[in-house]
Amino acid sequence: MKKKFLFAALLICGTLPSVAEEKPRYQDASLPVEERVEDLLRRMTLHEKVLQLQNNSNSDINAVESHYKESTGTMHEMSKTAKEAAELFKKLQHHLRTRTLWGIPALITVEGINGVLQDGCTIFPQAIAQGSTFNPDLVEDMAEAIGREAHVIGIRQLQCPVLDIARELRWGRVEETFGEDPFLIGEMGTSFVRGSQTEGVGAMPKHFVAHGTPTGGLNCAYVAGGERELRNLYAYPFAKVIRNADPVSVMSCYSAYDGVPMTHSAYYMTDFLRGELGFKGYVYSDWGAVDRLKVFHQAVATSEEAARKAIIAGIDMDVWDWAYQTLEEQVKKGQLDEYYIDRACRRILEAKFKLGLFDEGEDAIDPAKVDKVVRSKEHVALAKAVADESIVLLENKNNILPLDLSRYKSIALLGPNSNYGVAGDYGWVNADHHECVTLFDGLKNALGQKVQVNQLDGCDWWSQKEDGIAAAVELARKSDIAIVAVGTRSLWLGRNAKANKVTSGEGFDLSSLELPGKQLDLLKAVKATGKPVVVVLITGKPLVMTWAKENADAVVLQFYGGEQQGNAMADVLLGKVNPSGRLNVSFPRSTGNTPCYYNYYRTDRETVFDKGGSLDEPNGHYVFDKPYALWNFGYGLSYTNFEYSDFSLNDTVFSANGKLKAKVKVKNTGKRDGKEVVQLYVHDLVASVSQPVQQLKAFKKVEVPAGKEVEVELEMPIEELSFCNEYLKRVVEPGDVEIQIGRASDNIVFRKTIVVK
Amino acid sequence: MKKKFLFAALLICGTLPSVAEEKPRYQDASLPVEERVEDLLRRMTLHEKVLQLQNNSNSDINAVESHYKESTGTMHEMSKTAKEAAELFKKLQHHLRTRTLWGIPALITVEGINGVLQDGCTIFPQAIAQGSTFNPDLVEDMAEAIGREAHVIGIRQLQCPVLDIARELRWGRVEETFGEDPFLIGEMGTSFVRGSQTEGVGAMPKHFVAHGTPTGGLNCAYVAGGERELRNLYAYPFAKVIRNADPVSVMSCYSAYDGVPMTHSAYYMTDFLRGELGFKGYVYSDWGAVDRLKVFHQAVATSEEAARKAIIAGIDMDVWDWAYQTLEEQVKKGQLDEYYIDRACRRILEAKFKLGLFDEGEDAIDPAKVDKVVRSKEHVALAKAVADESIVLLENKNNILPLDLSRYKSIALLGPNSNYGVAGDYGWVNADHHECVTLFDGLKNALGQKVQVNQLDGCDWWSQKEDGIAAAVELARKSDIAIVAVGTRSLWLGRNAKANKVTSGEGFDLSSLELPGKQLDLLKAVKATGKPVVVVLITGKPLVMTWAKENADAVVLQFYGGEQQGNAMADVLLGKVNPSGRLNVSFPRSTGNTPCYYNYYRTDRETVFDKGGSLDEPNGHYVFDKPYALWNFGYGLSYTNFEYSDFSLNDTVFSANGKLKAKVKVKNTGKRDGKEVVQLYVHDLVASVSQPVQQLKAFKKVEVPAGKEVEVELEMPIEELSFCNEYLKRVVEPGDVEIQIGRASDNIVFRKTIVVK
Repeated sequence: MKKKFLFAALLICGTLPSVAEEKPRYQDASLPVEERVEDLLRRMTLHEKVLQLQNNSNSDINAVESHYKESTGTMHEMSKTAKEAAELFKKLQHHLRTRTLWGIPALITVEGINGVLQDGCTIFPQAIAQGSTFNPDLVEDMAEAIGREAHVIGIRQLQCPVLDIARELRWGRVEETFGEDPFLIGEMGTSFVRGSQTEGVGAMPKHFVAHGTPTGGLNCAYVAGGERELRNLYAYPFAKVIRNADPVSVMSCYSAYDGVPMTHSAYYMTDFLRGELGFKGYVYSDWGAVDRLKVFHQAVATSEEAARKAIIAGIDMDVWDWAYQTLEEQVKKGQLDEYYIDRACRRILEAKFKLGLFDEGEDAIDPAKVDKVVRSKEHVALAKAVADESIVLLENKNNILPLDLSRYKSIALLGPNSNYGVAGDYGWVNADHHECVTLFDGLKNALGQKVQVNQLDGCDWWSQKEDGIAAAVELARKSDIAIVAVGTRSLWLGRNAKANKVTSGEGFDLSSLELPGKQLDLLKAVKATGKPVVVVLITGKPLVMTWAKENADAVVLQFYGGEQQGNAMADVLLGKVNPSGRLNVSFPRSTGNTPCYYNYYRTDRETVFDKGGSLDEPNGHYVFDKPYALWNFGYGLSYTNFEYSDFSLNDTVFSANGKLKAKVKVKNTGKRDGKEVVQLYVHDLVASVSQPVQQLKAFKKVEVPAGKEVEVELEMPIEELSFCNEYLKRVVEPGDVEIQIGRASDNIVFRKTIVVK
Repeated sequence: MKKKFLFAALLICGTLPSVAEEKPRYQDASLPVEERVEDLLRRMTLHEKVLQLQNNSNSDINAVESHYKESTGTMHEMSKTAKEAAELFKKLQHHLRTRTLWGIPALITVEGINGVLQDGCTIFPQAIAQGSTFNPDLVEDMAEAIGREAHVIGIRQLQCPVLDIARELRWGRVEETFGEDPFLIGEMGTSFVRGSQTEGVGAMPKHFVAHGTPTGGLNCAYVAGGERELRNLYAYPFAKVIRNADPVSVMSCYSAYDGVPMTHSAYYMTDFLRGELGFKGYVYSDWGAVDRLKVFHQAVATSEEAARKAIIAGIDMDVWDWAYQTLEEQVKKGQLDEYYIDRACRRILEAKFKLGLFDEGEDAIDPAKVDKVVRSKEHVALAKAVADESIVLLENKNNILPLDLSRYKSIALLGPNSNYGVAGDYGWVNADHHECVTLFDGLKNALGQKVQVNQLDGCDWWSQKEDGIAAAVELARKSDIAIVAVGTRSLWLGRNAKANKVTSGEGFDLSSLELPGKQLDLLKAVKATGKPVVVVLITGKPLVMTWAKENADAVVLQFYGGEQQGNAMADVLLGKVNPSGRLNVSFPRSTGNTPCYYNYYRTDRETVFDKGGSLDEPNGHYVFDKPYALWNFGYGLSYTNFEYSDFSLNDTVFSANGKLKAKVKVKNTGKRDGKEVVQLYVHDLVASVSQPVQQLKAFKKVEVPAGKEVEVELEMPIEELSFCNEYLKRVVEPGDVEIQIGRASDNIVFRKTIVVK
């Protein structure tokens, strides 16, 4: 070892005699990445290669030199502030570059679903709120900002975005998804990956694959489904993001699909991911997923076997469980072919080369710059813009919103979310999120002394305590109007979440989708005062809002809105911002009336018997309720009105490789400027395998000034109509397809049937 | 045509010149069935063959001759009494044998899930109640009785049993299943098919395959799952019944699996069913399932295409939608090869030959005998025996049951099911089921004048009306004890079910599993009187009984108990019968806390975060509840106690073709004779694909007199440990397997680990 080190040191110093190369080829930035990777790989020992397949994290800045004797694959550190982290990372990379044998930098990774998970970074709205903007360009801007903040700290890979599909609403991680629709998720995922990677920060779509519909809503439970559903539904967003944005890596998932643990499966992690979907990056294990093959799936008896199975399957990087520490020994014992080590190492090195880690100078990380980039005015403004566009106006009886301040001189602001900022389950680790502007703060910021706003929680997020309700009711009675902010609460999962009354986020699954605790009682008590009631639902997931829909004067939805949440909601309530968010996930009528996603198969609401009942008029199917959502995907009101006209298609007959173009005019017939989301759905009228009754295939958010009209063009490659048939072959079947243009999935304005040849 | 008819008539009369055969070979009972089928097939025209693939029913006894110009495949008639039906069928068969060209009798079929669906036949407990007996021998006796009643009427095929798996409790047809466990279903299904076929009446396991877990609990909705789950779970009972009992046919299902409509799929209906599972009979379409390929699945554009797809897939008999009427023309036009017609016709003829229809005499149906067989004393006694053994005692605080008549001199019998007999959703068509002894009748029968029993409904099955509760409470207050019979109601689906307040059965799916209507309010109001409360749950499916478990003095479950239901429940309440039923389907803690089946995959209750919370102590997973059942599969109390000892296995190491034998001694340590269900579960400790935490693999119901001890031996072929691995290969993987002997899935008394080599 020592001799070798000397040799390498000489190489790097360029003092080796002429028989050796002057500068190792892998250090030559002018050479193709593949060549550099192979050059480096052949120099490395088995031990060194195995270290590249692991994550080795240490937060002690003083111990960098003693801790990192050799390089490591990835590293992360989330308990420090952005600036402290930058200092640590700078020191680490310097150490690795100059004091380890080949000078291989670490790939520093971090969670970044709605902002870099490093205390002090901009907290953007949670992913579910990004989805409800229906504005991929805005999400791309946001991802660029996240990428910039990451890069300046030294982080070169984000462990996101989440491309899981939110069909199981009990699941705590619904908030981390872009919603229920594979097309929308694919668009948002593409924007996120592009944005981040534009800034030189790799992205990591997750969780590959079919992780988001766990049985019973219980995190990591198995997902029921077959090979067709995998392709037609779960893998759709991954396929699109891989094709359009070339992510540096993907993360494997904890769960099993049709009984096969993903992390265990060469078929899914190699044949399917690389062969069928064309993925070129490296695969990062979900934290501990390799050893979970033993402790969770019990698919193997030992960590050694788990490691062997996983690396053969195609899991290149093992994070957090150290199962891959056994690989060196296993290769030496002949239990594993070194080929698999090389294969994984090659992919990880390739990522590092492509991200430029080998070629950037000592000043690539400059802690002094952190404060200029992180939480810059521009980024905070962007967080506000995303929050603004994410808010969905669900009910607005008699146009009570925006609030007429000439009528409402005093506001009772009530509810457990009225003075609390929710950052989401991948918000910072150590902070208390006082950076998050609460709704109370937001209203005060906006109103100043104009209107009196008095705040009381009334009840908390989850307990059965109701002793605060009386005071809240009393406050409502004394005020002109009540705004009641109810919903769920979410926190970084490591932050003593239980003590903090968390009801959403990873590990916090609900068996009931009713408002937790006594929140519905609070709403009913406030309503009983006779005062107007505006319900603000601040949540990470759809809840049952049947009572509120019927009884509240207005219902406004805010999926966790990031640090500007209170300002954004205040601007919507007061009319400074015209709401333009749309539901990216449908709301259920009751816990038992789920799933309620809009894109159900046409066999899933059988009409042979009837179309459902109600408590007053029971029927059959369901006996006491209609099998439909309360509010559907794509729905959202505005303070203005839009009218559609002049719908046309570029053709009526299309070939499989053709492109459909739809045009429609959208007129703002109201008195306020506003944004409208024009939506194009398809319904394949005859197809050999089950088809959804509707599938979103294009959408565009357009700003239309009051009284003006714009023409909107939506495009859809006919290939979007393809699906996997009963022989698992991807086909565009000839036949009739209905094209629907609408303002929501349940508000279709125009329909036209095309023929696909 | 005319000439041909003459020729055939001559043949049958035996007057043909010697150049022709004297008696057609197909009429020769001494020849092998295959030979007879081929002989007949080659004589038949295309038209005649296509008619054999269809169901042609006509209920007008006077129009038999004019309606049936030619033979038909199957026929049914459910609106007549048993005797009237026998007369019709006798006339029909006589006509077909003597007045149609080849004298091919019809295969007369009917529903028979819990008795022949012909008014006047014995009404046995519903299938879900048969399952809760855990007594396959008794179910076989019952199926023989059903077979005898069918046979005497002329019915030679029953459209049952249901082998669907009850995992989705919202589904209305849960009551038609044997429960949630594939092994138990396989045992019960085998018994049913054997019993019925012993009596010369073919059985028809349904619905092939994977029909019982519709998304959202909505009838016929798609079932999510893959090829492994298909084999390891859904097809397991079919495979066992096909292997062990050789059913005459199976029925295809309406639904799609992983997007593929079953009725459409040659892979599932031929390759899988025949090739992999070894099925030898014919396939009967669920009613209208062929045309539903067009109108429901929209998998084809025309009925012609539906017919073509279905017959190629392997649907031999098309029932109720007439799509196969198009086949003759399609063959003539060259759109379909006649091979497929022959294939289907061959299978149907083979069934008719095997059932002896060609060889039985004119007196095979004797309407005069109907009254002697149908609803005979023996059959009614058998219905009582099944009902007795199906009742499950769930709670019995302070041993309040059996009722101490010295203490309780007056009983308030309350609740909508207290004086109503529920026959189930395939009960007779026209009758009002007054033959069903209600609980009120049963108590009066048992008690005579000894105890005063006063009955009031208090509320109905489903409405929001609560005006009857006050009187019920008043009655309870004046009585020594209240027995409150709550639950669901079910009726033959054609019988104006909505007007009859139906809440269970085909087409009646629930979005909430709480007690429908005001029944829980009734329970709470009665409980508030302070009088002892015995809850009798008469239902077709598990409901949420969390309140009753905590607050009632006793809870007794009666899945729809057939015509003797009231007598059976009275005998249990009064102690004449010691309850011995066990839960064949787990009860949920709440609607949202489902699925709750006991045999969940071990990944489905993740313990990484925590083990669930409660309203008072919220936690994570679920936040407000434990992710487990309220009462688990296999559970049921007795009026005596049993103790297990001396557990032993015949070996500790087994080969894949070995057989495990477990012995255990069971002692009745109480003062009453009783029946115990000894249960053997397995848990495969390490396996390459997801494994349930428990799987029932053997059970035995044994009668143990008070104070006595019996030794019970349970056997399990090691092959029962086989499963389909990730390559879809059925394997017995070497490794450790835990053998559990218990009184219920959650009450394991002994555990031992064996090694499979």
